Amino acid sequence: MTASPPDRVRIVEVGPRDGLQNEPTPVPVAERIALIDALSAAGLPEIEVGSFVSPRWVPQMAGTDAVLAGLTRHPGTRYTVLVPNLKGLEAAQAAQGVHDIALFAAASESFSQRNINCSIAESLERLGEVASAARALGWRIRGYVSCVLGCPYEGAVPVAQVVRVAEALHALGASEISLGDTIGVGTPGQARALIDTLAASLPVTSLAAHFHDTYGQALANLLAVLDRGVRVVDSAVAGLGGCPYAKGASGNVATEDVLYMLDGLGLATGVDLEAVARAGTRLCAVLGRPTASKVARARFG
Amino acid sequence: MTASPPDRVRIVEVGPRDGLQNEPTPVPVAERIALIDALSAAGLPEIEVGSFVSPRWVPQMAGTDAVLAGLTRHPGTRYTVLVPNLKGLEAAQAAQGVHDIALFAAASESFSQRNINCSIAESLERLGEVASAARALGWRIRGYVSCVLGCPYEGAVPVAQVVRVAEALHALGASEISLGDTIGVGTPGQARALIDTLAASLPVTSLAAHFHDTYGQALANLLAVLDRGVRVVDSAVAGLGGCPYAKGASGNVATEDVLYMLDGLGLATGVDLEAVARAGTRLCAVLGRPTASKVARARFG
Repeated sequence: MTASPPDRVRIVEVGPRDGLQNEPTPVPVAERIALIDALSAAGLPEIEVGSFVSPRWVPQMAGTDAVLAGLTRHPGTRYTVLVPNLKGLEAAQAAQGVHDIALFAAASESFSQRNINCSIAESLERLGEVASAARALGWRIRGYVSCVLGCPYEGAVPVAQVVRVAEALHALGASEISLGDTIGVGTPGQARALIDTLAASLPVTSLAAHFHDTYGQALANLLAVLDRGVRVVDSAVAGLGGCPYAKGASGNVATEDVLYMLDGLGLATGVDLEAVARAGTRLCAVLGRPTASKVARARFG
Repeated sequence: MTASPPDRVRIVEVGPRDGLQNEPTPVPVAERIALIDALSAAGLPEIEVGSFVSPRWVPQMAGTDAVLAGLTRHPGTRYTVLVPNLKGLEAAQAAQGVHDIALFAAASESFSQRNINCSIAESLERLGEVASAARALGWRIRGYVSCVLGCPYEGAVPVAQVVRVAEALHALGASEISLGDTIGVGTPGQARALIDTLAASLPVTSLAAHFHDTYGQALANLLAVLDRGVRVVDSAVAGLGGCPYAKGASGNVATEDVLYMLDGLGLATGVDLEAVARAGTRLCAVLGRPTASKVARARFG
C-alpha cells in the first residue's frame, strides 16, 4: 500500500509502456532506454517500462527484456512491467531485476472480450494465477481496471462493475488499483462519484487515477479525484499514445501538464518538470511529431 | 446582473472576437457572418462578434460594422462588441443594432502599458467616459480584466490588483466582470482563491471565467471556479486564437470541450454541442488548420 503524506502526489510514468504501445511507429530499444533513463533522472518514482506480451500482438513492446537489461537503475525509481499471463511472468522472471508487475483487467465485458479475448471472470482467474506466482516471488502487484468511465463498445459502464473488478484485483494482492479512463470520455462529476463509491470498500490511498485526454477532460478529472484524496496519478511524458492533431487520438494525459497543475496546487512530486519536458522533446523527435503536452509547447517549445 | 439559476451556465462565445483577433490570417466578413449565424443557431446566448478598434492595430477586426449589418439576429442571442474608447463607441452607435459592449482593462500595469498604451488608472478613466455614454444609451456593459492569473511581463499578479480593477469596472456600470487568464498560466487553486477573494466585494453571479488553454489548465480551472459558484463561462469555438501545434499558442478554451464537461456535470447551457462543432470545423477549413477542440476531434473529426 502506498501511504503518501497528504501533500504529496506520486506520479507513475506510463509513457514507455501505455504511451509507446499506442504509437504507430515502434521505437528502437536504445531510444526506449534513453527515454526511461532520462525520466528516472528527472525524479519519477515509478516508470512502467514495457510489457511481456506477444510481439505478434504488440510489436511496439518487443525487446522489453533488452530495455530492462540496458537501463541505468536509479535508486529512487521502481521499474514496472505489464504481465498478461503466466508465460509473461516467466519472461519477467528471466529478465533483469523485475520486482514490480502490473496486471490488466477491464470493467467492461465487451472491452475484455475484444481486448484480451476472454470474459472479465476468465481474465481475473488468469490474473489470479499470475498474482499468486508473483506474490510467491515477493513482487509488488499493481492492478489496472480499464474503461472505468466508459467503454468504446458499451458506452456507459456501471460503477458497480468497476467496484467488482477493483475489489477482485485488490483481493488477489494488488497493492494499488489504477483506474483507467481508457478512452478519455469521463467528466469530473463522474470521476468524483467513482472515487466516492470505491472508497467505501478500498482505501483511497490504494487508488491511482489513469486518465486519457481524448476529450480534453483529463486534468479536470484529476482535479476532481485529487479533491477526493487520490494521491497517485498515472501520466505519460509528451502525452504519448495520441498525436495532438490525429482524429480521436487517445493519448494519456501529459506528465508535464500534470506536474504543472500539481505544482500550482502546492502538491509536491519530487519530479523535475523541465527534465521531463526535455525527455519528451527528444522522444517526439524520434517519433517525428509534436509533443501533446501544452506545457512543454508553451514553456519549452 | 446575470442571475442564472444555479444549475445553468451561460456561455459567452468569444471566438469571433478574441479568437479571430489572435489568428494570423484575417477571416473575410462573409465567413465571420456565417460563423456567427451558425453559433447563434446553435443556441449560444451571447456572442462577442467583433470590436471597434483601429484596423491599423487589429486588421482581423476590420469590417465589424459589416458583420453587424450582415448577421441574422437570433432572438435568444446577445451580440456584443468590444469598444476601446469614445471613438469606438461612436462607431458602435453608427453600426446596426448594438446594445451590448465590452470594455477591456488589465490587472497588470506592464500589460496595460504594452497592450493599450496607458496605465491602468488612465485606461479606467477612458473607460469611464465610454461607460457613461453607453449607460446614457441604455446599453449593457461587460468588463474584462485581463492577466488575472499572471502577466507575460510581470509574472505573478497580486490578487488585490485584480480586485481593484474588477471593482472599478463594476463601479462604472459593468454588470458582468469577465476574469481573463490571458496567457493561460493559472492553476485551479489560484483560480479558486481569486473567486473567493472577489466574492467578498462582488456578487459571484456577476463574475465570468475567461480562461485560455496555453498550459492545458483551462478546464481544470473552470471546474475550480464552477465549484465556487461562477455560472458564466467565456469560450471560443474550436479553441480559436491558438493553433493546436504552434509554440505557445494562447487559444481560448474550446467551447465544445467546455460544453462536454458541463453536460457531464449536469449543468445545462441550452447549446447544441454538435452544431457548435460543425461551425468550428467549417471555420478551421477557412483558416487551413485543425481544430484545437479535443471533443470536436474525437467525436466529430
